[in-house]
Amino acid sequence: MSTSDQTSVTAGLLVIGDEILSGRTKDVNIGAVADFCTDLGIDLKEVRVVADETDDIVDALNALRHRYTYVFTTGGIGPTHDDITADAVAKAFDVPLPINQRAREMLESRWRETGTEVNEARLRMARIPEGANLIVNSVSAAPGFRIGNVHVMAGVPVIMRAMLEALAPTLKGGRKVLSLTVPASVGEGTVGGPLAELQAQFPDVKMGSYPQMGAGYVRTELVLRSADEARLNLAAEKVREMVNAAHKAAGLPPLE
Amino acid sequence: MSTSDQTSVTAGLLVIGDEILSGRTKDVNIGAVADFCTDLGIDLKEVRVVADETDDIVDALNALRHRYTYVFTTGGIGPTHDDITADAVAKAFDVPLPINQRAREMLESRWRETGTEVNEARLRMARIPEGANLIVNSVSAAPGFRIGNVHVMAGVPVIMRAMLEALAPTLKGGRKVLSLTVPASVGEGTVGGPLAELQAQFPDVKMGSYPQMGAGYVRTELVLRSADEARLNLAAEKVREMVNAAHKAAGLPPLE
Repeated sequence: MSTSDQTSVTAGLLVIGDEILSGRTKDVNIGAVADFCTDLGIDLKEVRVVADETDDIVDALNALRHRYTYVFTTGGIGPTHDDITADAVAKAFDVPLPINQRAREMLESRWRETGTEVNEARLRMARIPEGANLIVNSVSAAPGFRIGNVHVMAGVPVIMRAMLEALAPTLKGGRKVLSLTVPASVGEGTVGGPLAELQAQFPDVKMGSYPQMGAGYVRTELVLRSADEARLNLAAEKVREMVNAAHKAAGLPPLE
Repeated sequence: MSTSDQTSVTAGLLVIGDEILSGRTKDVNIGAVADFCTDLGIDLKEVRVVADETDDIVDALNALRHRYTYVFTTGGIGPTHDDITADAVAKAFDVPLPINQRAREMLESRWRETGTEVNEARLRMARIPEGANLIVNSVSAAPGFRIGNVHVMAGVPVIMRAMLEALAPTLKGGRKVLSLTVPASVGEGTVGGPLAELQAQFPDVKMGSYPQMGAGYVRTELVLRSADEARLNLAAEKVREMVNAAHKAAGLPPLE
């Protein structure tokens, strides 16, 4: 493994909800968490989507939390019987799940403002695993929580994003990963061979190739990522030379 | 476990690609595969997203293929060095990865039409694990393949969807799962308690609760799913009665 892997900050994401697996709801949280991690220099290594089943959640959580620096979860912290994420997290950490007085106050304060009745279903949202810290929910008051390296957030995207903002200052970022994109006007198959040779010369610069499919044109975006700016720039220069050679062979103008 | 679990057809989905985990590409294949499975009565139980790393792909594939009736994968079957899905699948099944003559013919036939040069990078796309059957790609010719219960598809959404259509007739569907939605004009917290009681009375009808968040209104969609139409209708009737009682208490009109 390279040096940057040894020092990197990693994350796993667990998306919880039958509605994603049935197709009824189309997930947008994976992309938002991915962007968030990239911005902070955290390397999102794996995502899992599981159903609203306690054992499935516990198993996935235990697999992820021992493997990565941070785990984020989305979904399953509302007031209904199928919201079992807090129960599953408490089970995974083997701790009780009492009503948290601060969470209850947050909720009751909001409910007083909105004239909402306090009932048993709603108070489910104040059940927080013992030893966890709350994650403030500026949108609808019901808090998320952090226990160990696990950060439990709502599934509703606007609330999930607000919780991410709330917890960002508490996370240590990794080395910022820089990226450069070289836009080639030839197909992936044309640049595939020489790109593999360049990747072998620059093991510390990750090179990705993304075809752009459209009517009447062929284009391939070559994306280079590295935490080392000098190496990234050198690799990008070599990739640009390679692309310009391919352009010349195809009778196309060089890159700008 | 219930009878329907014993007879159900299940699936796992493995999404392969650094670009999803970095946030650069926003996945839309999870939702498409979820819809596809629901339409066929296949129960999608789990999704994993992993990086373009052979060991990560092999581990996830082996975890999923022994657990579910079918596994679908998307991504990593193009011509560049970071397209390593075929290599990883061959490794997971411990079989060689030769050039497949029929795949090569499919590709060369398309390349002749488009005047595309045959080269080593492009021929990577004809490497198919020994013993696999091809999945036709009507969009760009490069085929996917099926080996054992694993179905390997492209990551480009339009190609992935075309491959799903191609393999649909080869899959056995489960019992078709029916669903009914009851739209409540009250919040989740109001219906949470009585809904949990109804769920306990109808273990064979899965009840989900989905808040609709908007400015100036409160709404909760209660979605019921079951393979048993009579039980589904009876449960829906009970849920409608419960919602109407909640509407009446809130001074709202009954459901239509």
